[in-house]
Amino acid sequence: MREIKPLLTLVGAGPGDPELISLKGIRAIQQADVILYDALVNEELLQHAEPHCTMIYVGKRAEKLSTPQPQINQLIVDYAQTHGHVVRLKGGDPFIFGRGGEEIDFARAHGIPTRSVPGISSSTGLTSLQQIPMTYRGISESFWVITGSTRNGELSSDLQQAVKTNATVVVLMGYAKLSQITSLFMANDRPDLPIALIQNGSLPDEKIIVGRVKNIVDKAAQENTGAPAIIVLGEVVAKHQEFSQLKKELKEIPAVHE
Amino acid sequence: MREIKPLLTLVGAGPGDPELISLKGIRAIQQADVILYDALVNEELLQHAEPHCTMIYVGKRAEKLSTPQPQINQLIVDYAQTHGHVVRLKGGDPFIFGRGGEEIDFARAHGIPTRSVPGISSSTGLTSLQQIPMTYRGISESFWVITGSTRNGELSSDLQQAVKTNATVVVLMGYAKLSQITSLFMANDRPDLPIALIQNGSLPDEKIIVGRVKNIVDKAAQENTGAPAIIVLGEVVAKHQEFSQLKKELKEIPAVHE
Repeated sequence: MREIKPLLTLVGAGPGDPELISLKGIRAIQQADVILYDALVNEELLQHAEPHCTMIYVGKRAEKLSTPQPQINQLIVDYAQTHGHVVRLKGGDPFIFGRGGEEIDFARAHGIPTRSVPGISSSTGLTSLQQIPMTYRGISESFWVITGSTRNGELSSDLQQAVKTNATVVVLMGYAKLSQITSLFMANDRPDLPIALIQNGSLPDEKIIVGRVKNIVDKAAQENTGAPAIIVLGEVVAKHQEFSQLKKELKEIPAVHE
Repeated sequence: MREIKPLLTLVGAGPGDPELISLKGIRAIQQADVILYDALVNEELLQHAEPHCTMIYVGKRAEKLSTPQPQINQLIVDYAQTHGHVVRLKGGDPFIFGRGGEEIDFARAHGIPTRSVPGISSSTGLTSLQQIPMTYRGISESFWVITGSTRNGELSSDLQQAVKTNATVVVLMGYAKLSQITSLFMANDRPDLPIALIQNGSLPDEKIIVGRVKNIVDKAAQENTGAPAIIVLGEVVAKHQEFSQLKKELKEIPAVHE
């Protein structure tokens, strides 16, 4: 019988497109004895695993958690001890809102060595794919990524601060609170700030809606946009190609005669 | 003679390790007629290119720009028009402080179609590799990535605001201003905030130094740390394995008898 060497590797699967995982991520999957994967992970990635690998879905989708976190933590430890190398395959990057920190804490407390393979976070990857620059000389010197889903169900207080800054703001898992978020920006005199919603980013059914804070809720309703979607707020959004189109169309609307 | 189809693909090469590029990034390199690459790109990646591909170094390293940006923009357009598919290979992600936005603006103004392949940004990838969670329930609900290198040479005003928030703060290209940055945090009553410096992240000679705002400058001097390095500030840094070791060592120092 082979010796069991417990090991946990957290692997970032990227934003959805199975080709947006890293070479190192693929290699980790190939070396896995067990894979515990989330809902936001593209299942095509599992094809890289060896035939002996056990694959377990611990579906977790935005705000809705189907397998409770303590149970996932326990599964990691149990499988590492009985099977060896556990790969925890998570959407985006494992340490950005993925509760990867809690998983390594639990594993380490049980004496299991941990490693990480970074992934492309949706927060930066989906904007990049849409060629929205997160930063741009003379426009934005920073970007601030904030969760829309806090423990108490309220908007993060960080967002209350972010609205007062010049940072490009990205909200993950916040689509359900879109109107609360736009109200916050309106209340801070930023009705015209460019905003983008990217739904199912990097997948074949990706959809992007661009507009301004004051009209995005209506546009999203017209277009039937839904979660999972990321929200991007900032002057840099005006650099998106559709936004230029939008400005052109607005100019083409004949002026109303008084 | 084959028809020339001008195309610009911006490709994120990731933080340094040649296995931290995406599968899609590799594919883009394979399809390139010309590659314009930066200093922070691992040259091993160029081995994926076809033999006919022309490869040009347009070295750009943190604050120092050896090929001026307008010249890079012009090279992109000239090569796209004469050779076809230009891959602009950039460290990290092309739209995070990489001036990718300016390059696509210039290319589009010359009628050249543009695409992007996201990369793992150093800002999130190097922390992930070191298993420093950017967010952690009950500790941090957001992270803010800021450039340390502004056009006027001063600290970004965004950093002045960030110091007053609970966000995990990551400063890229800011190593030369480390003492200015720690002074700012000291002046805002945060001398004990955990801080990490990650130099040559993801490469064989990667080095990490963890400490607190009040002592990191001395530690960095002792350890001879240098650029390129990213700076990470936030309570989440205390989750790093070496930081636990640091706390343990501090406890082991015998108390001074008064």
